[in-house]
Amino acid sequence: MPSCKRLVLLILGSWPTAILAEDPLPSWNERAAKQSIVAFVQRVTVSGSPDFVPRAERIAVFDNDGTLWCEQPAYPQFVFGMDRARGLAPQHPEWRDREPFKSAVTGDLKGVTASGVKGLIELTAVTHGGMTTDEFDRIVQDWLATARHPRFGRPYTECVYQPMLEVLTYLRANGFKTYIVSGGGLEFMRPWTQRVYAIPPEQVLGSTIVTRFELRDGKPVLMRLAEIELINDKAAKPVAIYEATGRRPLAAFGNSDGDLEMLQWTAAGAGPRFCLFVHHTDADREYAYDRDSPVGRLDKGLIEAAQKRWTIVDIKKDWRRVFPADK
Amino acid sequence: MPSCKRLVLLILGSWPTAILAEDPLPSWNERAAKQSIVAFVQRVTVSGSPDFVPRAERIAVFDNDGTLWCEQPAYPQFVFGMDRARGLAPQHPEWRDREPFKSAVTGDLKGVTASGVKGLIELTAVTHGGMTTDEFDRIVQDWLATARHPRFGRPYTECVYQPMLEVLTYLRANGFKTYIVSGGGLEFMRPWTQRVYAIPPEQVLGSTIVTRFELRDGKPVLMRLAEIELINDKAAKPVAIYEATGRRPLAAFGNSDGDLEMLQWTAAGAGPRFCLFVHHTDADREYAYDRDSPVGRLDKGLIEAAQKRWTIVDIKKDWRRVFPADK
Repeated sequence: MPSCKRLVLLILGSWPTAILAEDPLPSWNERAAKQSIVAFVQRVTVSGSPDFVPRAERIAVFDNDGTLWCEQPAYPQFVFGMDRARGLAPQHPEWRDREPFKSAVTGDLKGVTASGVKGLIELTAVTHGGMTTDEFDRIVQDWLATARHPRFGRPYTECVYQPMLEVLTYLRANGFKTYIVSGGGLEFMRPWTQRVYAIPPEQVLGSTIVTRFELRDGKPVLMRLAEIELINDKAAKPVAIYEATGRRPLAAFGNSDGDLEMLQWTAAGAGPRFCLFVHHTDADREYAYDRDSPVGRLDKGLIEAAQKRWTIVDIKKDWRRVFPADK
Repeated sequence: MPSCKRLVLLILGSWPTAILAEDPLPSWNERAAKQSIVAFVQRVTVSGSPDFVPRAERIAVFDNDGTLWCEQPAYPQFVFGMDRARGLAPQHPEWRDREPFKSAVTGDLKGVTASGVKGLIELTAVTHGGMTTDEFDRIVQDWLATARHPRFGRPYTECVYQPMLEVLTYLRANGFKTYIVSGGGLEFMRPWTQRVYAIPPEQVLGSTIVTRFELRDGKPVLMRLAEIELINDKAAKPVAIYEATGRRPLAAFGNSDGDLEMLQWTAAGAGPRFCLFVHHTDADREYAYDRDSPVGRLDKGLIEAAQKRWTIVDIKKDWRRVFPADK
């Protein structure tokens, strides 16, 4: 029964074959960055190769702000915090003369950042705490439904990078488990990462608010307190990855000094590892910056990426499209 | 080509059919506890049923000590801590006259517990910290390879409950993701949960030691400090589950007051939920205890389980076999 055998083979084999046959990264120009991604994936997934890595250990971690979605002219979560401060202002007359609230309520980003890390933490705590986890989830979803990027005029969730969406899909098709490891708020990201990145909530790591189990009228709830628990940035990132997964990633993707330790730790693992650093070079289609991030001069990561010969993405040259809406 | 169609159907359908055809819980007696597990799984997995739950949301959480493995006459991790204190004693002459170290070094469990929670935390911090994560992994594996349960004479990893292993397998075969949510140390469990429970490290939640990213001779390592970060017990458990998964479990399994909040929070979710409480009633085959746990009188969980009509397992009556080695 040769036709039957063929049918069986078709069922068992057609899907992976289709994936191999098509270009998995059509929004990438044919340059070294793209080639390095494909070469690494082939290296660790070809069965029998000395560099083969079992599926369970194929962990890839991605920073979010500036790596998966646009972080300019301000981190979307800062805009969320300012919008929320404006909504809460009527209940807080004392904010009228107090920074960073005064600037936040008037939408003055520079005024907010002028209050420094301490001010930003205070603003975040007050605007992200004081409700149950279910309530906060709803608040984030409502905000995302109406907020628009000031330059692109689209929802923030449509200001994600098409080439990176392709990398996520390509890695997953090759047995990788993809994680977000962001300095952004854990619960600010989870309501939309499944829909936008196909990354489920259990594969999102981020900064956290102190959360407490309480019985409210006998009903258990998780209350978010107005207190930051963890800022998941810099040296906190590799620790968070290890505590969450018990594994060292095979591949790490970042774009700033906040990602450096995560990239260093990934690179230092035994066997083949892949590190990629996104360099924002395209003022026409997105933004051009490196030393001047939204929170000041940061270039250690970029310098080390070059020294260690990690893959550096030059957006202007490497990305055929930047956003899904681009032609 | 009817024979061909049959062959295709066989490939597509044989595996789930085989699972349905066999008794998934052969070590359970035919009583209400077993029936409640099977009824719940069928209720949430039959496509088209009003109680159907998509695979991604089928989360089941399991306490470890006393729920998946034997916690008597002492938590295995306490024995590990005492054994390790004995090994470290030559470098700590000051321990000779200081509790809980003095008792730990002589293997006097009662003396150790007499120093209370503060003493236990101090002992745990010193014996579980002060090395890299890789080094600790090795220390745990070496200990497990030689340590034996004092009554059963087997490795602790063979003092796991056969009926619960079957529940884990049964749930996973029905699309559940199984997690351990233990008061035990995260990194004390991860080296062996995959092998023993088929639960990968990223699905283990536990108590943590403060861990710090460091460059040692330019090489990145994660150092475990001699300082407890989180005791993952009682009200900390639902918070840990939410922070790790962003989801509320469908099913929760525990055996002590330390599991009560996790069970309450699971039970309070919308739609069908399943809570199970293991009651240790079998002094012949295992141990009989409830009010007198290794750390004192604890019976709130058992009382509430009865009041709320959660499934209560009476080991003596419900389990045909207790350990894999039992006939």
